[in-house]
Amino acid sequence: MKVGIIGTGDISHEFIDAAKHVKQLQVIGVTQRNLEKAQFFADQYQLEIATDNLGDLLQSVDIIYCGLPNSLHYEIAKQVITQKKHIIIEKPITSNTKELKHLIELSKEHDVLIFEASRVSTLPHFKLIEELLEDEQDEIFININFCKQSRKYFAYLAGQNPNTFTTKYSGGALYDLGVYGVHFAVALLGKPQQIHFSAYKLNTGTDGFSSLILEYPKGLVTINSSKMTHGDSNFTIQGLKKKIVSHFSVSTIDSFEVIENHETSTINNQNQENMVYYLEELYRIISTQDIKTYEKQLSNSLIVQEILEAARKQVGIVFKND
Amino acid sequence: MKVGIIGTGDISHEFIDAAKHVKQLQVIGVTQRNLEKAQFFADQYQLEIATDNLGDLLQSVDIIYCGLPNSLHYEIAKQVITQKKHIIIEKPITSNTKELKHLIELSKEHDVLIFEASRVSTLPHFKLIEELLEDEQDEIFININFCKQSRKYFAYLAGQNPNTFTTKYSGGALYDLGVYGVHFAVALLGKPQQIHFSAYKLNTGTDGFSSLILEYPKGLVTINSSKMTHGDSNFTIQGLKKKIVSHFSVSTIDSFEVIENHETSTINNQNQENMVYYLEELYRIISTQDIKTYEKQLSNSLIVQEILEAARKQVGIVFKND
Repeated sequence: MKVGIIGTGDISHEFIDAAKHVKQLQVIGVTQRNLEKAQFFADQYQLEIATDNLGDLLQSVDIIYCGLPNSLHYEIAKQVITQKKHIIIEKPITSNTKELKHLIELSKEHDVLIFEASRVSTLPHFKLIEELLEDEQDEIFININFCKQSRKYFAYLAGQNPNTFTTKYSGGALYDLGVYGVHFAVALLGKPQQIHFSAYKLNTGTDGFSSLILEYPKGLVTINSSKMTHGDSNFTIQGLKKKIVSHFSVSTIDSFEVIENHETSTINNQNQENMVYYLEELYRIISTQDIKTYEKQLSNSLIVQEILEAARKQVGIVFKND
Repeated sequence: MKVGIIGTGDISHEFIDAAKHVKQLQVIGVTQRNLEKAQFFADQYQLEIATDNLGDLLQSVDIIYCGLPNSLHYEIAKQVITQKKHIIIEKPITSNTKELKHLIELSKEHDVLIFEASRVSTLPHFKLIEELLEDEQDEIFININFCKQSRKYFAYLAGQNPNTFTTKYSGGALYDLGVYGVHFAVALLGKPQQIHFSAYKLNTGTDGFSSLILEYPKGLVTINSSKMTHGDSNFTIQGLKKKIVSHFSVSTIDSFEVIENHETSTINNQNQENMVYYLEELYRIISTQDIKTYEKQLSNSLIVQEILEAARKQVGIVFKND
């Protein structure tokens, strides 16, 4: 399957490094407004195509990976879908539910698939956690932290208005980091019955740090995210019988501990780079036409998007795309 | 100064162990409805007085320590205060603000002092943290966890209706454990401008676990507490320049780490049992008539009480005392 990449940011490098490990995927080209940058990127990875014209790239590939800033996902996806190519879009898939619903409609019309690059539920460690919780059946209390001071925060302080902290690019802590926690919760517990969001807002109108609570009939999930303060990324799942603790973020779950009856087991079974699991699963879904799994993933993306948008509304974060 | 104890529960044992280390305080007696239990307790610590009559004990002491269940604090305190004796009351000081305001009024009328046994702000480690944050001056994000499955949860599951999970005794996770986090936040940052509370409620009407968010003009404090699931007790203070992490609860802060410029310092300076610091400070306030500090403490107790009550109201937890 031939893959084309849109954008040459850090995340595109990560994608290409992961794709190398999935032999069924061949990244063959890249597009970016600045042709020199596209060429430089293509040279690094010996890609056939480097272009400043998305149309040219689309002709030669089966699927597009889009790692551009959040607010640009929608317009690009429309172009890709109407040209009848599948698309993988970085998290969060769109800036709001209206955009996502429109993309879903368009994709059905043009008979292509859209994927949100949310690897959480495809990680072996996530699946182990799901199994471990099967016998809990009862009340559950999940606390997720995804807090990391961004280099860009200093650019913000210097008045340089970096994309990641602007409403123009649908940025902020919730959309950049909290989104991983929301995906984790939704994959595990589905749609919450109630949410609450508290945020410290920057003068750009986005959240520098924030706390999101998802309420379920038999549980609570709290998600603390920050891009401006010095924090940790980890999570704890509290059950009635056991406790699961990871000192890694929900986005990778590199390892975790299970504490039950005063005994601790450390689980460390992921032997490949975490994005590789996602790409293998994505290829499996496309090649076997596993529509059931595809629709489940997309339905989760929609729930995540509804949560993010509802959260924003509670504190008055308005994006340019709204 | 002669001290009398009301109640012979676990917490009374803890109090007496701490009081032994403060030479100015002599615990001389105990009262409890069951005279045999009072005598058994008195014998263990060679106390002069063991009685089932509070009045008898009051005649012989300067100050009373009350470690009874939360809902009983108010009625006992009224008796003690009107007999012109000082009183130390366990956290939370009362079940609601109405009770506390009345006690404050009564105490002025009878010229005695009332103290909430909230040791947090008297701990040397708390004072060090306050100093460390002085140069932060800026935005702050605090995450507090106080989660511990209670032995009593199994009594609850067995239908035995233990005090700690009932509205009759003003119980639940917020009032038993979250209260420490609220005291920590209020001592550090004062009165929040907004709060939000989400809770998983047991069929007794109290919270088995819950999340409280305190919103400040330049920060957020999140407090997760649980008495029914397997969790951890720790806290993180995220600043713009540094991070403070403790693997101990805010109630004791046995040690903590400061991470700044990629360097970690471990602070472990508390060389006596944490309740001893509180009792030394309490004796200092009384003996030096340090009314300024006394009033600051009481004002914080009132803010804490207002937060707890407002939180309860948001999720419909109603106590018998209300």
